[in-house]
This record gives sequence, structure tokens and C-alpha cells, in this order.
Amino acid sequence: MNNFVFYAPTWFSFGRGEGKNVGALVRRFGGTKVLLVYGGGSVKKNGAFDTVTASLAQAGIPCLELGGVQPNPRSGKVYEGIDIVRREGVDFLLALGGGSTIDTAKAIGMGALYDGDFWDFFTGAAPIERTLPVGTVLTISAAGSEGSDSCVITHEKGDLKWGCPKTDVIRPKFSVLDPAYTCSLPPYQTACGAVDMIAHICERYFSNTPDVALTDRLAEALIKTVLDAAPKALADPNDYAARADLMWTGMLAHNNSCGVGRDQDWASHQIEHELSSLYDCAHGAGLAVIMPAWMTFVTDHDPLRMAQFAVRVLGCEMDFAHPERTAREGVARLRDIFRAWGMPVTLGELGTKAQDIPTLVEHRRKKPDGGFPFGGYVKIGPEEMAAILRLAE
Amino acid sequence: MNNFVFYAPTWFSFGRGEGKNVGALVRRFGGTKVLLVYGGGSVKKNGAFDTVTASLAQAGIPCLELGGVQPNPRSGKVYEGIDIVRREGVDFLLALGGGSTIDTAKAIGMGALYDGDFWDFFTGAAPIERTLPVGTVLTISAAGSEGSDSCVITHEKGDLKWGCPKTDVIRPKFSVLDPAYTCSLPPYQTACGAVDMIAHICERYFSNTPDVALTDRLAEALIKTVLDAAPKALADPNDYAARADLMWTGMLAHNNSCGVGRDQDWASHQIEHELSSLYDCAHGAGLAVIMPAWMTFVTDHDPLRMAQFAVRVLGCEMDFAHPERTAREGVARLRDIFRAWGMPVTLGELGTKAQDIPTLVEHRRKKPDGGFPFGGYVKIGPEEMAAILRLAE
Repeated sequence: MNNFVFYAPTWFSFGRGEGKNVGALVRRFGGTKVLLVYGGGSVKKNGAFDTVTASLAQAGIPCLELGGVQPNPRSGKVYEGIDIVRREGVDFLLALGGGSTIDTAKAIGMGALYDGDFWDFFTGAAPIERTLPVGTVLTISAAGSEGSDSCVITHEKGDLKWGCPKTDVIRPKFSVLDPAYTCSLPPYQTACGAVDMIAHICERYFSNTPDVALTDRLAEALIKTVLDAAPKALADPNDYAARADLMWTGMLAHNNSCGVGRDQDWASHQIEHELSSLYDCAHGAGLAVIMPAWMTFVTDHDPLRMAQFAVRVLGCEMDFAHPERTAREGVARLRDIFRAWGMPVTLGELGTKAQDIPTLVEHRRKKPDGGFPFGGYVKIGPEEMAAILRLAE
Repeated sequence: MNNFVFYAPTWFSFGRGEGKNVGALVRRFGGTKVLLVYGGGSVKKNGAFDTVTASLAQAGIPCLELGGVQPNPRSGKVYEGIDIVRREGVDFLLALGGGSTIDTAKAIGMGALYDGDFWDFFTGAAPIERTLPVGTVLTISAAGSEGSDSCVITHEKGDLKWGCPKTDVIRPKFSVLDPAYTCSLPPYQTACGAVDMIAHICERYFSNTPDVALTDRLAEALIKTVLDAAPKALADPNDYAARADLMWTGMLAHNNSCGVGRDQDWASHQIEHELSSLYDCAHGAGLAVIMPAWMTFVTDHDPLRMAQFAVRVLGCEMDFAHPERTAREGVARLRDIFRAWGMPVTLGELGTKAQDIPTLVEHRRKKPDGGFPFGGYVKIGPEEMAAILRLAE
């Protein structure tokens, strides 16, 4: 186990009806004038918008609005939000939605207190030292941004989908998690969210760090919960218990509680970011294609680790004479599960063509550090990235 | 799953050598004058005391000392600490040791800002609204007080071992966890700590709340880690990986991450507190006696839950025709494990006599609420408490 710091000081209010406490929570964490950031109309249909604005009004907190955040959130909304915050003297950002909305609010929070371009934080030109406080009301279980130290934005100039460096500074002050808000999610989005959670855990699970028995088991507990709850939520969208399991697992999957003390990978996310920045596919759908391909590519690196994943998480029977067979069976089972959830599992199903592979690899080179190699478990250069994409064909 | 709030804003620095950062952490959390609370001489032998005081000196933070805290910490040290804090203008409490030391620091922190008797917080006569900040440097993996919202003190008038109401206000600001400090722990204390961790998880695990699949799995992951790591630490006290697993598990076992959204039990702890307040036995040793007896007593309440514990945690094979047999086999295995670790598993081995049982039950009645019934899983009245104690004979 490596040395580590863990500091996750977000207040979580979890459960049906908790949205009514938003006004009091904003007050508790020092907000006096709020910018409410949200996406499309779904929050107006599922009751979340009305509950939140009523709670703010009751607490006497003035509220401006910034709607229209899109999936794979774009820099334009961030600049727009920074302008409003500065012009109107907003001192608290309240995100109402999923990861795209929360990440937009986080980026506005960083940029509003910085004289330069907020994108400097994403290129590495400036360190993130402070931010306006952010609170969240979650309506999509997936990204884990409601408790995380990370933020991903796509810059419109060049379609660059990059994350800023992880820092506890940008963890939300509070997050309200009402599973009932997620019952209106369409099946495709529910499945995308479940895949994203599994990816967040796997990016941490596949590690070369020795002596990580505890975080291995915590990670396995989280993935098994997703595998158990996701099909229930797909079969019955109003299954509150399944929605609740997914919602709290999504937070734990990305607040780093199962990633402490171990080197992490993040190669599948890096490859997927190229896919969704160029083709604007859903992040979870891109991960459903890339992750099993990546697992196939890295199986030989440590067949016993992949076999552990296959046995403990996917219930495969261990072939002690041929652990690599167990490992490969696990990867196949995971791909089958994603397919059963209605997810694409090949680039073709995602709408990408074989001839796009060189484009994806080249686009990766635009990163300030040249983009290669990446991946903490197995180092991925341009050839390896192309090989993984071919395995996903 | 029940609605819940989870708010655990403690900073954790984990790993070998992290003690050197204590001075900077005290500064970060606003301390300018420290009272260093510790127990016997062990922290002077294992290097922790020297590292911590050197770090404080380097940060220019003056430091007063309050040593001599005993296991089952007593009110006398709390009053002594409150006097020092007030007289000397201390603004930060730094606990160096295990749960007894940390709980003493927490109680001093509450009492120092309160005009009345700190014991009012434990009788329920006053609510805990604020406290001086507390930091910890942990040297015993057991109580979990380094990340918890709880505090237990024994009042010398009447030997009352009571906990204050749980509140996030008293969670430490930071905790430094260096597993190397625990390598000098004697085997008996190592085993007591492991039992205490398992108890903290089981008190949450045995619940009547439906739909708690996620926290069940997290709890099982933690207990399996203790069962794996404790014998390694007993076989080789310098096994850093095992010590690290125990240290982080001990924190997670009691920061309530595996207890959110579910009713909890705490009957075994309540009964053990009577044992250790009257006979001054080690808390973990008392729990090793009480917990299997309590499990035997409650098995029929929900044989399938106990069977789940037996199968998933203790590796028993499920007897689908007779789940209660699996349940009882699990309890027997847990008792065998405690015995193999050198723990007492009967009241006799603890030095208690059968004729003490009525005394223990009567002593419980001194609680402000009359002491009965207690227990969230199965309600325990005086007769049930006596029956559990007889099962422990």
C-alpha cells in the first residue's frame, strides 16, 4: 500500500425528499446568492427544479439560472457562467443534474476567481488554488462528480475533452442525492451510468501496487452492487432500492475511497475521451466499447489479477491450471453484461469506422504533454492505443 | 435503505513517516497552541512522541503535555485537561495514542468551551454544539475514534462508562495514521483491536432495515480484511502490509461508511461497557466474550441474515435445507477465531463470575433513561441481557 492523503469533506444528504433542504445547506456553507446550473428540461419534469427553487426561496436566497448544459459539457457554458457570476455577484454555484452539469459548475467556480482563462487549469498553465463553493443536487447516477475531486470539460476550439488535475479544492461542499429523481431516466442513460461507475472502479482496481487487499475488496463490493442493481433498475425504472444502490455506489466509485494507497490506471477513460470528444457519444457507451477491449489487451500483463476480478466480481469458477482462461472468461462475461444492458460493445455499434482509428490516435497528441504514453497499469503508446481500438472493432 | 446524512470531513494522512507533517496540519486547521494528550510510555519508545514534538517545534507551535491517559479513559483526565486548556489558552488538542487518548482529547475539547460540567454531554443534560479542534496521531488500530463521531468516557463517580450522543461536530480535523507505529503493539492488544473493529462493523451489519445490499457488501469487505490481516500481524508484528490493512480498516469500521441508511444495533457494545466499567477489562477482550454470545442469542431472529454473515464473511458452506445450521456454524467459527487470536471467549476467562451477572444488569440501570431496553436489531431487556451473559459463561 502506498502512502496517501484522503480528504473528502462533502456533506451528503441522501434519500427521498432531501431536496427540500437545499436552501438550508446553501446557507450552512456560506452562500447568499446562487447561480443554478442545469441541463435540459428533465429537471423541470421530475420535480427537482421546483423543489430546489422553492427551498432557495424559502431560505431567502436569490437565484440566477444557467440552463442548457449539454452532455460532454462544453467550454462555452463555462465562459457564460463566469460572466454571470462576476456581473451579478454570485457567491455559490448550485448544480442540478448529472456529471456534465456538476463539472460545468466546478469549472465556473474555478474560473470566476481567476484573472486568466479557466482553460489554463486544464492545460496545466495554472494551478487550482481556490474556487467558489459548489453544491449539487444529483439527478443522474453515473459520473460521481457529486463527491469527486475531478472535472472534465470539452473545449470547443479543437474538441479537446480534458480533465483538470485532481484536487480536493473542487470537491462539492454538499450534495443532495435523492434516488427518486433518477427514476425518470431512460434505460440507455441508466445503463451508461452503470458502465461509468464500473469504469471508475476498474480504473483503480487494475493496479501494480502490492498489498492492496482492503481496497480490492471495497472495489469488488461496489462493482457487485452495480451488477446487481443495474438490471433491476432497467427492468423496473421505479425500483427505488435499486436506484438508491446505484446512486450511492456512483458516489463511492469516484470519491477515491477504493483508490487510496494504490497506483491507478485511467487508460480506458483517456481513450474514451477521444471517442466522445470527436463523435459526441455518451461517455458510458464509449466506455462499454473500450473497457472490455482494454481488458483483453492487458490480460497477459497479470493474468491472476484479471482472474481475481473474474472470480470475485463476475462469479467465474477459477481454473487453477489455466488462470488466463478464467481471466478471459471474466472479460467476455463483462462484455455480455454490457450488451444485455443495451450498450454498444463495438466501435461499429457506436457509429465509428475502422478508418477513424488513426484520427483518434492523432487527436490524442494534442495534449500539452504530447498525450503518450498513458495508463498506470500498462503503458499505452500510439501503437497500443490503436491495438486496443482494433480489439473494439 | 433509510434516508441519511454522511459528513466525515476529517483529513487523513496515511503511511510510513507521515508523522512529520503534524505541525503543518495543526497550522492548516488553525491551531497556534497545542495540548498534546497521550497515555503511557509506549509513544516515547516507538518514536511517535519525538517525531510529533519535533514537527510541532519546527512549525513554531508551542505544546503543553497531558500524559497518563489509561485504557477505559476516566473523567479525571478530562477535568485536568480542561483546566490546562483554560489556564494556558490552548486552542488545539492533539491526541497521540489510541481510542482512549483520542476520546479524552475529544471530551476535553467539548468541555473546554462549555461553562458547565462536560459530563452533561454524556447524561444528555446539554447538547454538543461546538468543540475545540482535535487532531490525532494514531498508534493503536482499534477504536476508530480517529475518524468517528463518537466518544466514550468512564466517570469515576459510579464507574459509568457512557458514550456521548454521536455528532459530526466531534470528528477530528485531521488524523495521521502511520502503521509502523503499531508494530510494537503486544499481541494481546493487537487482537483486542481486531475484535473491536469487527464489533464496530457487526453492530451496523445486524439490522432490520431492508434493501441494504451495498452497505452489507462494504461491511463484509471490511470484516474479511480484518480476518485476513489480524493473524498475519499476530504471526509477524512487523508485517507492515497487515498493520496497514488493520489501521485503515479500523477507521472505516467506525466512521459510519458501512452504517449509513440502516438501523444499527450496538447491544454488544452496551453490554461490554458494563463489563469494562466494573472490571476494567480491555474493551476488545470484553467484546470477544459478549459478541458471539449475543449472536447465539439473536440467531433465531433472522437465521438467513446470520447465515449470510456465516457464508460471505466466514466462508461457511450454505446449508439451504437448514440455514440456521449455517448461521450457528458461523458464530462458532467466529468464536474459534477469537480464541485462536488469544482472546478470552467466556466470562470466566475474563475473570468474571456467574454471580456477577445480576450486578452487571443492575449497573446498567444507572443510565439516565433507565438503561432498558436497548439494541436496534433485537430489543434487550434485563432478562435478555442476563440470558446473553449466561451464554457467555
